[in-house]
Amino acid sequence: MQNAREVHAVTRCAAALVPRLRDRAPRVHCITNSVAQNFTANVLLAAGCVPSMTLSPEEIGEFAAGADALLINLGTFDRERREAIGIAIAAAADKGRPWVLDPVLIDRAASRAGFARGLLGQKPAAVRLNAAEFAALADGNAVADFAQMHGCVVAQSGKIDLVTDGSRRAHIANGHQLMARITAMGCAASALVAACVAIEKDCWLATAAALLLLDVAGEMAAETAKGPGSFAVAIVDALYRLDAATLTARAKVT
Amino acid sequence: MQNAREVHAVTRCAAALVPRLRDRAPRVHCITNSVAQNFTANVLLAAGCVPSMTLSPEEIGEFAAGADALLINLGTFDRERREAIGIAIAAAADKGRPWVLDPVLIDRAASRAGFARGLLGQKPAAVRLNAAEFAALADGNAVADFAQMHGCVVAQSGKIDLVTDGSRRAHIANGHQLMARITAMGCAASALVAACVAIEKDCWLATAAALLLLDVAGEMAAETAKGPGSFAVAIVDALYRLDAATLTARAKVT
Amino acid sequence: MQNAREVHAVTRCAAALVPRLRDRAPRVHCITNSVAQNFTANVLLAAGCVPSMTLSPEEIGEFAAGADALLINLGTFDRERREAIGIAIAAAADKGRPWVLDPVLIDRAASRAGFARGLLGQKPAAVRLNAAEFAALADGNAVADFAQMHGCVVAQSGKIDLVTDGSRRAHIANGHQLMARITAMGCAASALVAACVAIEKDCWLATAAALLLLDVAGEMAAETAKGPGSFAVAIVDALYRLDAATLTARAKVT
Repeated sequence: MQNAREVHAVTRCAAALVPRLRDRAPRVHCITNSVAQNFTANVLLAAGCVPSMTLSPEEIGEFAAGADALLINLGTFDRERREAIGIAIAAAADKGRPWVLDPVLIDRAASRAGFARGLLGQKPAAVRLNAAEFAALADGNAVADFAQMHGCVVAQSGKIDLVTDGSRRAHIANGHQLMARITAMGCAASALVAACVAIEKDCWLATAAALLLLDVAGEMAAETAKGPGSFAVAIVDALYRLDAATLTARAKVT
Repeated sequence: MQNAREVHAVTRCAAALVPRLRDRAPRVHCITNSVAQNFTANVLLAAGCVPSMTLSPEEIGEFAAGADALLINLGTFDRERREAIGIAIAAAADKGRPWVLDPVLIDRAASRAGFARGLLGQKPAAVRLNAAEFAALADGNAVADFAQMHGCVVAQSGKIDLVTDGSRRAHIANGHQLMARITAMGCAASALVAACVAIEKDCWLATAAALLLLDVAGEMAAETAKGPGSFAVAIVDALYRLDAATLTARAKVT
Repeated sequence: MQNAREVHAVTRCAAALVPRLRDRAPRVHCITNSVAQNFTANVLLAAGCVPSMTLSPEEIGEFAAGADALLINLGTFDRERREAIGIAIAAAADKGRPWVLDPVLIDRAASRAGFARGLLGQKPAAVRLNAAEFAALADGNAVADFAQMHGCVVAQSGKIDLVTDGSRRAHIANGHQLMARITAMGCAASALVAACVAIEKDCWLATAAALLLLDVAGEMAAETAKGPGSFAVAIVDALYRLDAATLTARAKVT
């Protein structure tokens, strides 16, 4: 049974992060797929963050070292991205900066799943994925066991999002089905997780708060959207306009 | 003179594809240019399909083999894309899956036109392009002759779209001039062709139906758009909301 | 003290460029970062231009030679882009076509700043950047001195944009703060500079006019936008609908 105090802490943390993100403007360096780059950058900017996206092995060390957090997303997985990933994680680790793994579509290619498994040893602060991707990563382990085993927070997106660090658990029932009809929504969620773990030390709280922020923005966007096209526009607007009181009033965390 | 029964079949096929795409949710792997990736993915998702976009030679074989159709778009034409193309077509052929060629801007570079010509021997189910691109590909042949010669469907986009397999011909007069004022509209059309040939065996019907779907969505979008920016949003919404009756009522196929 | 006649010339030039861009439809080849490609292409199309974006060293020479202007943007800076840059600039120079440099985020990585400095010797018609990027490029020189030293126009974006060729200076007070909350707005501005220097020989006038066009469109977009998402859509619409009279009435150039 989940402790009610911890659950309320997620909503409080998310409400506090709305102004904290805007005040601190964390730099988030994203190694992310080319489909998701533009939308991810706009989601980060709408929340008050400063995205950067270069992949060049020659300069990514400097970018990652100068960022407050790093996102590693495997969505399009070319050679330069793979080479950049190792350099960027080393640079972030060297500065004590957190990094977040989004193992996109590892259920579709064994080589990609193997690569993602290899990254787990490099201590991501959080892993965000969906149920099919988790199954491809976890060798039959339960989400909480996997989190404990790898010492990271796991955020599994779905109709209800689950966020656990192995001992604590939050279920987030916000969001809207149109979030699954737009490309890069999960990628943007992972980028927002990176932004939140950059400024909130409790990684479980930060990760759950990040998903709550985006899910509430998604609900607000769905109230005016006429389809996935206008939804993708409206969720960026909603994230930009979100305030702590609205976030708190709408939160459905258990 | 075109047989009226065949022309009506295009509209019927398109009307039937509206729910079929949503029910079957075909996987479409897209090797497409980086300008078009995001919009293409959102168009496919709006129509009910599941896009994937990786280019990595190491994993593209698995992605292409696991997809229901493959799109090869030459818009940005870097080395990794070129290497990926051969592997992906071989994987699709091995599984008996159709692939669609979009030889973007081959009228602007002889090397690209040469590459596109080389791909014709690998039996695309359909080639979608505009008149300038067709001229660069076809050595003076007429569209119907070219289709017959290469055993593929040719879809030539323009004010009126022409779709032929060499013997049958459909002219589609739907669409709107704003479709030419947004980048990646033709690329998205080609992706939709790939989705439709994945689930409708008659490739001429499927190709014509795909263009009709997008053209009708374009007309609907133009009714509320204030310019190309809002048009690009509205066409995704329109495709998502499109129903068979509206499609049939609006179709202008001859 | 700035000559009032020269300042009015900027507004007149911008007003004249609204129809000139649509009539001439200049081809602009963009070597730009993958985050910015889609938005940049749509901004160019909205203004009446024809964008192309390929990076392949094998074909970029043909594309650059066939274009009316070239944009070099360093936002994502992979190997193929770097290789393509040299070929493209040589092809443009060979045809006497202007090129524009956007040294994105050179303040974040010394290697990138060094690369940008190397490009200055290859005679860009204009350099567009923000204050932090200018500081990383200019070794403490003032903007006007730097422009004179390198024989190019410098456009420094900010709350008030400054455009100078070393002797003439325009300050543009149009624009809206949401322009900084959307990714790729500066990249799109640089692309529009390339389009304008393609058809207006006075490079200082053309560069200032390009920023004025986008800034006025930004003001118009902000009047209906509900946040950065809808703003990014509305600025494309506004640029498409912009007319010379509106531009002139709104211009705040000193």
